[in-house]
Amino acid sequence: MNIPTHENDVSQKICFEPIAWVKNGSNESTAPDSIRSEPSKIIVREDLVLGLQGLEVGSEILVLFYLDRSKEYQLLQHPRGDLTRPIRGVFSLRSPNRPNRIGATIVTILGIDDNVLTVEGLDALNNSPVIDIKSA
Amino acid sequence: MNIPTHENDVSQKICFEPIAWVKNGSNESTAPDSIRSEPSKIIVREDLVLGLQGLEVGSEILVLFYLDRSKEYQLLQHPRGDLTRPIRGVFSLRSPNRPNRIGATIVTILGIDDNVLTVEGLDALNNSPVIDIKSA
Repeated sequence: MNIPTHENDVSQKICFEPIAWVKNGSNESTAPDSIRSEPSKIIVREDLVLGLQGLEVGSEILVLFYLDRSKEYQLLQHPRGDLTRPIRGVFSLRSPNRPNRIGATIVTILGIDDNVLTVEGLDALNNSPVIDIKSA
Repeated sequence: MNIPTHENDVSQKICFEPIAWVKNGSNESTAPDSIRSEPSKIIVREDLVLGLQGLEVGSEILVLFYLDRSKEYQLLQHPRGDLTRPIRGVFSLRSPNRPNRIGATIVTILGIDDNVLTVEGLDALNNSPVIDIKSA
């Protein structure tokens, strides 16, 4: 039984502004494990620096970021583009090619220096806009 | 040492459209634990239903949703609005009152029926737009 969503506004636009940007050496789309292997810096907007208070080295945060270089998406995809694996729905995958291009990764804080967080485990490309940082 | 973010476009708008909506009995802002105590339904847009293939009852998914009824934010807040707890930066908290109003919660799938997921553990208010669903 399909439940219609007509009562909701499908064309509603939900807009955000970046709060930070990622800096690392990964400029080209590659396997997430490869991007993740090097620490990244997250450069936070100076007007938002107070919001970092309470973050601590060694603790985990959830980073939401914009997958600005992801490609056209298909609703059914081979996991990690591996044609030997059966296709699955995009919402059961973490593929960057998805209807709303948001990445969500839990990372560990290695350092905090004013508006710069150094983190381990982030699989975002260099210059990706960050949309949110939360306690994990 | 503050690192400037001038080279990046602070006014860049990042926009999304809802992929689904939350249905539950929580119409008023209340403690997350209270919202979470009842199962919610996630009604997925009919044009995106194929994207649910591969999701299974019992598995965990990360749900990103729009906190459309959150209030003005402050960069420093008392955790859960509890004035007896010291203020902390918003990025070290999961407060709904934040620069970009996105909630991120890991939930367990209780049921899947066409375009309707029934989930346990979601702390979104009734009718909240869903922005993304990912394998957790």
